[in-house]
Amino acid sequence: MSTSASASASTKSIIIPRVKAVDAKESTDGNPVLIKGWVRTIRKQKTLAFVEVNDGSNMNGIQCVLSFDDIDEETKKELARVTTGCSVVVEGPLVKSQGGKQTVEVAATKLRVVGECPGDAYPLAKKRHSLEYLRTLAHLRPRTNTIAAVARVRSQLAGSIHAFFQKTGFVYVQTPLITASDCEGAGELFRVTTLDIDNASSLPLVKTEDGKDTTDIVDSSQDFFGKPAYLTVSGQLGGETYASAMGDIYTFGPTFRAENSQTTRHLAEFHMVEPEMAFADLDSAMENAEQMLKFVVKHVLDNCQEDLTFFGKFYDKGLIARLEKLVAQPFVRISYRDAIKYLQEEIAKDPSKWQFPEVEFGTDLSTEHERWLAETKFDSAVFVYNYPKSIKAFYMRDNDEDGGETVNAMDLLVPGVGELVGGSQREERLDTLLDKMKEQDLDPDDYWWYLDLRRFGSVPHSGYGLGFERLVTYVCGMENIREAIAFPRYPGHAEF
Amino acid sequence: MSTSASASASTKSIIIPRVKAVDAKESTDGNPVLIKGWVRTIRKQKTLAFVEVNDGSNMNGIQCVLSFDDIDEETKKELARVTTGCSVVVEGPLVKSQGGKQTVEVAATKLRVVGECPGDAYPLAKKRHSLEYLRTLAHLRPRTNTIAAVARVRSQLAGSIHAFFQKTGFVYVQTPLITASDCEGAGELFRVTTLDIDNASSLPLVKTEDGKDTTDIVDSSQDFFGKPAYLTVSGQLGGETYASAMGDIYTFGPTFRAENSQTTRHLAEFHMVEPEMAFADLDSAMENAEQMLKFVVKHVLDNCQEDLTFFGKFYDKGLIARLEKLVAQPFVRISYRDAIKYLQEEIAKDPSKWQFPEVEFGTDLSTEHERWLAETKFDSAVFVYNYPKSIKAFYMRDNDEDGGETVNAMDLLVPGVGELVGGSQREERLDTLLDKMKEQDLDPDDYWWYLDLRRFGSVPHSGYGLGFERLVTYVCGMENIREAIAFPRYPGHAEF
Repeated sequence: MSTSASASASTKSIIIPRVKAVDAKESTDGNPVLIKGWVRTIRKQKTLAFVEVNDGSNMNGIQCVLSFDDIDEETKKELARVTTGCSVVVEGPLVKSQGGKQTVEVAATKLRVVGECPGDAYPLAKKRHSLEYLRTLAHLRPRTNTIAAVARVRSQLAGSIHAFFQKTGFVYVQTPLITASDCEGAGELFRVTTLDIDNASSLPLVKTEDGKDTTDIVDSSQDFFGKPAYLTVSGQLGGETYASAMGDIYTFGPTFRAENSQTTRHLAEFHMVEPEMAFADLDSAMENAEQMLKFVVKHVLDNCQEDLTFFGKFYDKGLIARLEKLVAQPFVRISYRDAIKYLQEEIAKDPSKWQFPEVEFGTDLSTEHERWLAETKFDSAVFVYNYPKSIKAFYMRDNDEDGGETVNAMDLLVPGVGELVGGSQREERLDTLLDKMKEQDLDPDDYWWYLDLRRFGSVPHSGYGLGFERLVTYVCGMENIREAIAFPRYPGHAEF
Repeated sequence: MSTSASASASTKSIIIPRVKAVDAKESTDGNPVLIKGWVRTIRKQKTLAFVEVNDGSNMNGIQCVLSFDDIDEETKKELARVTTGCSVVVEGPLVKSQGGKQTVEVAATKLRVVGECPGDAYPLAKKRHSLEYLRTLAHLRPRTNTIAAVARVRSQLAGSIHAFFQKTGFVYVQTPLITASDCEGAGELFRVTTLDIDNASSLPLVKTEDGKDTTDIVDSSQDFFGKPAYLTVSGQLGGETYASAMGDIYTFGPTFRAENSQTTRHLAEFHMVEPEMAFADLDSAMENAEQMLKFVVKHVLDNCQEDLTFFGKFYDKGLIARLEKLVAQPFVRISYRDAIKYLQEEIAKDPSKWQFPEVEFGTDLSTEHERWLAETKFDSAVFVYNYPKSIKAFYMRDNDEDGGETVNAMDLLVPGVGELVGGSQREERLDTLLDKMKEQDLDPDDYWWYLDLRRFGSVPHSGYGLGFERLVTYVCGMENIREAIAFPRYPGHAEF
């Protein structure tokens, strides 16, 4: 959108601002502006028309008042074509608003319709639609207040995540999405291929010893990468290689899970922020995660007030207070053993209230448990650390203390969402790591390069992963993660 | 890396800085520091040892001088274990350096080896390796001067791209990577699937009318997304949907090409920056691309001086002068017709010098032509605009003038690289767009949502795509794009 000053047909220079910049003004000098955007509402009276124009830069848009005495004939004709959703260019001086809703408005002298929007066909013609319905129109839903506000907040969150890590000297590494060595949780991987899988008989087959085709086994050496390739589930292992050279790094990119899951908390394609720090223990990772979250949430509180107020009004009454509290209060830190103890005490009072009343050392906490800890027990963001070995990944560092039963892992639980961050100190000792891989039936040959980091100048290092769409969901007070991303991907849905 | 002040065994508080912060100091107060990093070189003399430690934050690292009179017995023992590549923690006061290479050094009193690095096994033990060899060690190559410098410059470029768009009010949109509707150039797409394609006979087959399996046709409705899905080649179409609501947006994410190409300019997985602006013509897109490139290159000139000097010294003598010129000079803008004319005139002088001497209206310019225009004819970044319809994509806007033969498309050609940016004004007129799709045999049903943007409040809009790895290659003076990304993906290579 060209926002610079532009000479129009009139000799006077006209400013072409984004609405947000105009809306923030407390006063106006009466200078003419040119507003370009989409009509949200139009009201006509006997001698006046009110056209609310939104250009996506803010929630409220700007009111354009057309007095029939002040507009040319062409504009009068154009007014008949103005409908919700059409695009317009409106010209006129910016004046103090008469109504209470906004501080300034455009005393329009000229309006032109740029692109019509036939009301009978436009799927967003009516004002209110359910979020479910809007998902079927993911290409148009950013034209609604809710999804436009989510898009703005999401963008500010992403921008401030980059700003936080850049200003603290972290190197941004874009780890690969296509990988042949992603062996973790093979069942949940998407396969990437250039083989013609639409025609079963066209697939190349592995030869038998006497040079004939096998009946069935597809020869993946003929695929694009010369072997089976998948979409990554995490950038962590690649991130560790760069942390072992650059010190502090972060990734921020897409990750994939081919889980057949239709929950409000999962997507097949989502984004992770994964910092990795050399010479850092689990405490450093918790400290960094807390600082980072406070920084980005404060950024949004400072820069997206209008959007957050909207979410607070229509979706989640306590939203702004909760975000302010997150920024102001130190996060609670408790061990997994303590978490289990607190849960057992609480559940003992009335087990029937719980969907999963069986909780003991070794239990993988469910969302019910996580939310009770964050929402009821502490009413705060809570780090739970030192998880049982048995429920955590092979690369997490064995605790030297704690009876050898736990690893230096942590999850951050947040009111309203549950788990938002998961992290750990990584096992940097080669022998211990090899033992752990053996225990979990992993083949060291698949991880030769990962093990090299422990062979050559190994350092204690830690990192964590933040589910970005969960953060967006949390900060916007949304219930379903499918609202947090432009075009959500889940089983059966890859449209647009 | 924990860089805060930390109380050590001694009562005095010790600063744990990144080397870059220390190296930049002109003077020192003699306070003790704790340096954590990897040893690049070690030199021992009779009563002294010099250990150069690098922590990834800068190129030069820091020299630690150990005088045998000042160090404890343990440190003396540790020195025997110090080899190139091992990780160490070094403690001592920061003092003015005696040598000319650096301003400050550590007068080390204590050194501990954190992780050994056996010299006989370490693949980077020797000082110089070819870039080709280093690609086989992509997990270790960020420990080399060259690739660490590329990583730092790349990170600064990425950070400043976000900073540029965020400060100018663009909304960051992460468009999906998995798509079922990416119909452009189907031959170059990666397919994404959860079908068990390793076993040909396990693939579900489409049923015939009488309910039997066909012999061959795989039933993609049983795949994860209920239809064939692919990795995207561009975020543009999704970006247009958000620009048609938010005004100015940008994407910055991975894109994929399954081209069987082994050139120095192509990757199977790379990153694109794709801004899209509503109410904007081709001139606006060129203006924005020029401003953005100048902003990010200036950012790197200001913030990565040491790394650029290194590239200038070892890879590309004219690098810094060329980057400074890019920032200082207005980009040249010429029409495609003029480009052809200039080329024809030049080629006529001596056709034998050219690999592709046949150039006429309709010719898709080759890298040879592009580089001659940017390097020889203009010695400048050059926008070439108004390309023939026949060689450009269906979504580019027909020129109203120019005899109906051209579209509002542009490419930015840059000395040393050739095409760096490609953009266009998009066809916003529904009927014209439908005609163009018909001409190119595209099925409008596949693009129903894209066409909706032209049905409902359509606006003139423009955008461009910047190949991010090409920018990194250009700014770092590298010859091969495989150096510009952490783990390059190309045919046969998806290791790490």
